Amino acid sequence: MEIKEILEKVKKQQLEIEDAMNMLQRQEYCIDDNREERTGAPEVIYGAGKNAKQIEEIIIHMLNHHQKKIIVTRLDEQKYEYLKTLFPQFEYEPLSKMFYYNEDAMEINDGKIAVICAGTSDLSVANEAVITARILGNEVIQINDVGVAGLHRLLNRLDDIQSANVIVVVAGMEGALASVVGGLVKAPVIAVPTSVGYGANFHGLSALLSMLNSCASGVAVVNIDNGFGAGYMAHSINCLGGKK
Amino acid sequence: MEIKEILEKVKKQQLEIEDAMNMLQRQEYCIDDNREERTGAPEVIYGAGKNAKQIEEIIIHMLNHHQKKIIVTRLDEQKYEYLKTLFPQFEYEPLSKMFYYNEDAMEINDGKIAVICAGTSDLSVANEAVITARILGNEVIQINDVGVAGLHRLLNRLDDIQSANVIVVVAGMEGALASVVGGLVKAPVIAVPTSVGYGANFHGLSALLSMLNSCASGVAVVNIDNGFGAGYMAHSINCLGGKK
Amino acid sequence: MEIKEILEKVKKQQLEIEDAMNMLQRQEYCIDDNREERTGAPEVIYGAGKNAKQIEEIIIHMLNHHQKKIIVTRLDEQKYEYLKTLFPQFEYEPLSKMFYYNEDAMEINDGKIAVICAGTSDLSVANEAVITARILGNEVIQINDVGVAGLHRLLNRLDDIQSANVIVVVAGMEGALASVVGGLVKAPVIAVPTSVGYGANFHGLSALLSMLNSCASGVAVVNIDNGFGAGYMAHSINCLGGKK
Amino acid sequence: MEIKEILEKVKKQQLEIEDAMNMLQRQEYCIDDNREERTGAPEVIYGAGKNAKQIEEIIIHMLNHHQKKIIVTRLDEQKYEYLKTLFPQFEYEPLSKMFYYNEDAMEINDGKIAVICAGTSDLSVANEAVITARILGNEVIQINDVGVAGLHRLLNRLDDIQSANVIVVVAGMEGALASVVGGLVKAPVIAVPTSVGYGANFHGLSALLSMLNSCASGVAVVNIDNGFGAGYMAHSINCLGGKK
Amino acid sequence: MEIKEILEKVKKQQLEIEDAMNMLQRQEYCIDDNREERTGAPEVIYGAGKNAKQIEEIIIHMLNHHQKKIIVTRLDEQKYEYLKTLFPQFEYEPLSKMFYYNEDAMEINDGKIAVICAGTSDLSVANEAVITARILGNEVIQINDVGVAGLHRLLNRLDDIQSANVIVVVAGMEGALASVVGGLVKAPVIAVPTSVGYGANFHGLSALLSMLNSCASGVAVVNIDNGFGAGYMAHSINCLGGKK
Amino acid sequence: MEIKEILEKVKKQQLEIEDAMNMLQRQEYCIDDNREERTGAPEVIYGAGKNAKQIEEIIIHMLNHHQKKIIVTRLDEQKYEYLKTLFPQFEYEPLSKMFYYNEDAMEINDGKIAVICAGTSDLSVANEAVITARILGNEVIQINDVGVAGLHRLLNRLDDIQSANVIVVVAGMEGALASVVGGLVKAPVIAVPTSVGYGANFHGLSALLSMLNSCASGVAVVNIDNGFGAGYMAHSINCLGGKK
Amino acid sequence: MEIKEILEKVKKQQLEIEDAMNMLQRQEYCIDDNREERTGAPEVIYGAGKNAKQIEEIIIHMLNHHQKKIIVTRLDEQKYEYLKTLFPQFEYEPLSKMFYYNEDAMEINDGKIAVICAGTSDLSVANEAVITARILGNEVIQINDVGVAGLHRLLNRLDDIQSANVIVVVAGMEGALASVVGGLVKAPVIAVPTSVGYGANFHGLSALLSMLNSCASGVAVVNIDNGFGAGYMAHSINCLGGKK
Amino acid sequence: MEIKEILEKVKKQQLEIEDAMNMLQRQEYCIDDNREERTGAPEVIYGAGKNAKQIEEIIIHMLNHHQKKIIVTRLDEQKYEYLKTLFPQFEYEPLSKMFYYNEDAMEINDGKIAVICAGTSDLSVANEAVITARILGNEVIQINDVGVAGLHRLLNRLDDIQSANVIVVVAGMEGALASVVGGLVKAPVIAVPTSVGYGANFHGLSALLSMLNSCASGVAVVNIDNGFGAGYMAHSINCLGGKK
Repeated sequence: MEIKEILEKVKKQQLEIEDAMNMLQRQEYCIDDNREERTGAPEVIYGAGKNAKQIEEIIIHMLNHHQKKIIVTRLDEQKYEYLKTLFPQFEYEPLSKMFYYNEDAMEINDGKIAVICAGTSDLSVANEAVITARILGNEVIQINDVGVAGLHRLLNRLDDIQSANVIVVVAGMEGALASVVGGLVKAPVIAVPTSVGYGANFHGLSALLSMLNSCASGVAVVNIDNGFGAGYMAHSINCLGGKK
Repeated sequence: MEIKEILEKVKKQQLEIEDAMNMLQRQEYCIDDNREERTGAPEVIYGAGKNAKQIEEIIIHMLNHHQKKIIVTRLDEQKYEYLKTLFPQFEYEPLSKMFYYNEDAMEINDGKIAVICAGTSDLSVANEAVITARILGNEVIQINDVGVAGLHRLLNRLDDIQSANVIVVVAGMEGALASVVGGLVKAPVIAVPTSVGYGANFHGLSALLSMLNSCASGVAVVNIDNGFGAGYMAHSINCLGGKK
Repeated sequence: MEIKEILEKVKKQQLEIEDAMNMLQRQEYCIDDNREERTGAPEVIYGAGKNAKQIEEIIIHMLNHHQKKIIVTRLDEQKYEYLKTLFPQFEYEPLSKMFYYNEDAMEINDGKIAVICAGTSDLSVANEAVITARILGNEVIQINDVGVAGLHRLLNRLDDIQSANVIVVVAGMEGALASVVGGLVKAPVIAVPTSVGYGANFHGLSALLSMLNSCASGVAVVNIDNGFGAGYMAHSINCLGGKK
Repeated sequence: MEIKEILEKVKKQQLEIEDAMNMLQRQEYCIDDNREERTGAPEVIYGAGKNAKQIEEIIIHMLNHHQKKIIVTRLDEQKYEYLKTLFPQFEYEPLSKMFYYNEDAMEINDGKIAVICAGTSDLSVANEAVITARILGNEVIQINDVGVAGLHRLLNRLDDIQSANVIVVVAGMEGALASVVGGLVKAPVIAVPTSVGYGANFHGLSALLSMLNSCASGVAVVNIDNGFGAGYMAHSINCLGGKK
Repeated sequence: MEIKEILEKVKKQQLEIEDAMNMLQRQEYCIDDNREERTGAPEVIYGAGKNAKQIEEIIIHMLNHHQKKIIVTRLDEQKYEYLKTLFPQFEYEPLSKMFYYNEDAMEINDGKIAVICAGTSDLSVANEAVITARILGNEVIQINDVGVAGLHRLLNRLDDIQSANVIVVVAGMEGALASVVGGLVKAPVIAVPTSVGYGANFHGLSALLSMLNSCASGVAVVNIDNGFGAGYMAHSINCLGGKK
Repeated sequence: MEIKEILEKVKKQQLEIEDAMNMLQRQEYCIDDNREERTGAPEVIYGAGKNAKQIEEIIIHMLNHHQKKIIVTRLDEQKYEYLKTLFPQFEYEPLSKMFYYNEDAMEINDGKIAVICAGTSDLSVANEAVITARILGNEVIQINDVGVAGLHRLLNRLDDIQSANVIVVVAGMEGALASVVGGLVKAPVIAVPTSVGYGANFHGLSALLSMLNSCASGVAVVNIDNGFGAGYMAHSINCLGGKK
Repeated sequence: MEIKEILEKVKKQQLEIEDAMNMLQRQEYCIDDNREERTGAPEVIYGAGKNAKQIEEIIIHMLNHHQKKIIVTRLDEQKYEYLKTLFPQFEYEPLSKMFYYNEDAMEINDGKIAVICAGTSDLSVANEAVITARILGNEVIQINDVGVAGLHRLLNRLDDIQSANVIVVVAGMEGALASVVGGLVKAPVIAVPTSVGYGANFHGLSALLSMLNSCASGVAVVNIDNGFGAGYMAHSINCLGGKK
Repeated sequence: MEIKEILEKVKKQQLEIEDAMNMLQRQEYCIDDNREERTGAPEVIYGAGKNAKQIEEIIIHMLNHHQKKIIVTRLDEQKYEYLKTLFPQFEYEPLSKMFYYNEDAMEINDGKIAVICAGTSDLSVANEAVITARILGNEVIQINDVGVAGLHRLLNRLDDIQSANVIVVVAGMEGALASVVGGLVKAPVIAVPTSVGYGANFHGLSALLSMLNSCASGVAVVNIDNGFGAGYMAHSINCLGGKK
């Protein structure tokens, strides 16, 4: 059905607005089926910008194309309620709001990724990184609540941290954890600023600038709250360390 | 001489512009002679906004009023060259560009102030804090080059740091040192962000926001590069710890 | 129970999402039990980023460790309704939304802290500072509604203000009160910008910049709306003034 | 001569670049000769964006049109050196860098304007306001060095300040003076933020935001460092107070 | 009742939270009863930061002190519903959300104020300026919907505009109207940027910067959306034009 | 009815607030009926800032003036529900929330406009551009989901893109699509940054700055999310390519 | 010569640094020779980022490839002095600092472009637009000094302006001219904000935001001071109006 | 010699200021000799913040400790002139201003790093990345002048790019190259925004935000102009790909 037809039906009240919106968006969506081949990982569905029906259709398309790893990020619980019965083979992690299918959940990469998280409030972002990296085939060590205000907590876990091929550091507020970790390890550090904080935090700007200006070398930064991006980047690096 | 007269003389070329400027500024200047009595410390001369002749006159005024502590901040070397022969009793510290007179250089406060500095490039600001605090009558421990990228350097000096009544932390780039120190001590921490860095540092904004969002409690912040302010604040706090 | 197990139970609908979230967060939380020993004050629970059940568990953990001072900040009324029956020994101050337990509510420090507040709208932040300082063992004088637009109100209270060891100034809008107070006293001033205002206030940026650029010496600044931080810092300073 | 011709001459090296630039700008300049009639004050020459020869020509044009008040703002000393011999009837004030001609220097307005200046470094802006207001025909009281860090200096001058029809407040750093004055007077206050300061001053942003968020009513703001604009606005207001 | 008592009653559940909040705020409020005498206008109640009961008490206090002009700004309809039956002598203007009492609604100033508004969306701010100026005793001409995109609409009203002693220009988006009006009149112009717009408007920043950088002289600016401030400033200026 | 009367009726409770608001706004609205003649396109109704009744009246006014093209932008569904029965001849497109009447829906311009959209989330803005351009009489090719992360999707559509007279590029996040397209075509490119994204996107600032700094020539930019403006600009350009 | 060789020669002091720099940059430069074919205009040399020798080589390369239009932007006079004798067939316009060669200086497009400039200080940017458009084959009308503070100057030139196919508006400070012109014409308007101004102008941000938020439709914006981009865009649009 | 002694000698004019400065900084400097062991790479000397004599001393210290790789970044030519005769075994690359010693210049890592550069003006940053990565033991392919405005240039080099283990993308202006490359490769991409551009580029902010918001996955970002950081990070990642 053409856009024109759809709109005419809306005008004639033969079509509900909600349905028209779905039809309008559906026909526009063009799935990049060969992305995995080209870049090593499948296209990911950003759940925040789509409604439940659209996500349903995209998942069906992907399953029909035999994709074995399907990731939906930022899926709120309302949409999850709709989708969980349709796709019982999917898992849902409520803190990070990820909904995902991982047919062959094998660790394919040889090395480990460490995801280090400064505070409890940063957990939703850290979990997004952890789950992303696991789905893409990596062993992940998660180390929480080791913010620099209690340095001993971090130093206690140094062996674990130094055993990893790649390190993801998730921190809000002043984001100092990235620099401290960066000065203690040889592995590359992916820093994820979070929007946790208030006032002069300016929705994550504080941690973002901190991490970009890290006095430690070997630190690169992804967008504020972008746990998925950090997990993906860490996987992309960990691939270089050999396969199991 | 009235402004009007001064300007007429300029017009008639009976007065050089440089001299006219001095005269115009001199007659405007009104020294707050009772500030020490009111706030516990003398008025300080901000050297960057005045020329050498003006500073000369203000110093003479202060000496005539028997002020025993005179501080000129941010005095560049050119002005210093002019003033050093006029006031041989003054000292000059070229990194911080402070020029000062301290008739009775006694330590009056009982406790110590620690000034901790992340990197060599932050030294000019750290020295400004150190000298300010010393002139005002405090014993100061200065600990340099202990940025968080090499954490052992800081931890090696922990005893010294914990022995102080007040701690000043001077750091540029991501300013993480303030949070790390804040988590290790009981004493109040005055954090001084510096403009050291480039790019997304935005002239000190990065360290400023970091320090304001410190995850450690007991940290308060002064303006970017304001070593004088930090030294003054530290003195003001250290006064509470009793007199020698 | 492992994360994996939790998520499998969610998938099999053996576990409600809300419960799963609690379990996921609970197992991550790692309480810094020796913080009081190290820094002189207990770890504080930031109530805004946690749900009522989590806070319940942390409080129980702390009570079991015989902590005599427990502070929860930014606890909204809904969570308070849940917690008040569980912990009848706690108090709640609804303006600042603080929930706290103070077994031995003694004033331990010798000197006083003055908390000065510019306007009625800044009260929630001022109260956070007052209560924090009191719990930590300080006598606090609170002086409200003395913004600089009616200068006589401030000058009338000068004796009280000058009697304090430390002064906390809480102000939104243009934050001028910090400079005015800073010019009138010898004691150190902790300035707290608030987000009170609109338009070019930019959520507290206006007062924050004002206070950082104060023309008065002896002023240091904490984050926007950070009454807790100011109260803590004031306590940390007041400790130097001797114990009762 | 057409642009084309000018450029051809440059190419053939029959014309120096400096001369060509003058010719190019000259032919573009279109003086708004009836502005005084329309808005009550003559067009003003912004000296910073023009070279000495261009200013010379504009002045000649204005003198030929019998303008009795000619104002050039921000004229640096190098250009002044060139112009002073050509126009000996002009005056030059070196702090504000104003160059002006005022054939009938009479005070035409009945009321007075007070220009209040926080610190010595703000004098160049304050003088621009004072001279502008005087040229336009106002009696001006100038009160310098009354920043809020020493409040008594301001209160000592309250009678003078309250005697004025309009008040211009010039302040850098945190700009608190505008609010304090605004709370003490009935007259309208024009606030001029200056770029005096460093660090988190952000080139005058701090004072600008302060003044826009003043908790006192009856305060309006002009651009950072815009002493001319404040003097003009004050004159425009003072006109309502009647003529001598 | 002391704060302590109030809180104890809350703890013992003898006092509802809502009531406790009212009591806590009430006892803090300190009304600046002599502001009218000092600055020429009464203290104004900023309705957005207070609840209905608090406003009720302040109004009663003011009525008891025989204040004849009482202004509450930004009073939402819910609070209005509560207050309207208590104070039937008050008026309410729903666009600007002003609630006010004006016992002797006389025009006391001789000259007129023109309030010019760029678009329909700016009306709430314009009305706030209009009503404020009227309550304070001024005749006001209101001219709406004359944005610069249709210049003829403005030029058609030029006579009205030029008849005013003071002009208030209210505009959002790019705020160009202030400059255009400023170039057409002799009277002082108070420019009010509004937050009307979206995207790169950044909540009124666009119009604010425009107005501060106006190429026309005789324009001063108040805070974004501050219709009250503009009306007050205009009144303050119009007072100079003589009394009726 | 005068404003005064309206308000009196509100006070006497003879008029509901909602009705009073409608009346207040209605009488202020002044429709620019000759805008089409002057600028080539009718005045457009910005639906976000008006209520349904006001829009109803403006539409009736426009229909009475025989306007054949009426565009309401950003009309939410609630207002649409009210208006759709009143104006059955109008169409509504729910993604862009446009409500419009187009009596003679003819393509009048000879050339085509291409509207290229980076991702599904940018569709609401792209559709606004498409519909605007169609109503104004242009043939539009819409090409969706061709973001630069999968470059082949864009290159596959190059023939279509190069066949257009004008190209509108709609993209959020980093907005790179505008530069890539700009380097591939001769036609002028109108770039529309969208607010799609999160974190360091800062509500569209990222794409806005990208597009303004495009390394390709022949790219000009409209406001964030301003699909209407881009469609209008594209039409305005396409008019130059001749009429059908 | 390889980079390695070059650097070895530098080390052995067989090569001067200046020469090495030229060699290093030269071998990197890769001229996009088919850009004209692809996008309709030749690659342009951004003179600010290259030294005179590099520009010499690129010009020689282009002349060897028989390019008939060669544009160097932002060439300072020092580089011009070096190049003018080498390329006597080039012209230089000193205000905009453009250096260009235009073998067949024919007007190829049928319609005219109007370049409108607010003030004398904006001329360098306006001239860049004018010359760019002329070289690319357009008839250009240049209208200077028509800022909105003197509206009659603009209205006097309305016939000229309305005769153009495309209009470029160049303005600094508050940039209001773009909106005023946009409301008066049917042709598309390309707005160029300039960095002319000071203080809250923030290096052109003020005019940039103004123009992006223009209340007039049919206005699109290029980067601050980007006269070249505006001239190019205008040409690109004017091409649609037919060839001579 | 103690600081005190140094300053006394300055006062007595027994010591030149320049020498005093050297002595003051020298005694503060504390070289982190075990950083290589801890983090895998030696401490690097930031040349911009030190004078030539200080750098000389640090180099001597490092040579004495048998460090085989010594890197000085941002060493201007004046300092280079001083140092080149002292350390003839060092190399200097004048575009990036790097001065370095690499005793065993062997490629130790198995995989390759590709450094891709958008334009000639970005070369200084790209070269810093290239040289850093080479010194640390990596084979580097450098691909210049492949900005997205001429996409074919990039696509022509796709085989080279896809052969690398890690990719560094250096781009200024809108920084779109990072997203385009990120969508074409499997390897991790380190994006370096440069400050190349003007106006709304805001000193690199534009490219920085672009890269942080990249729609392609597998992209992480370092500070503006931080070529060294990108080369270091790329090395750190490439280490995972095995040793030669």
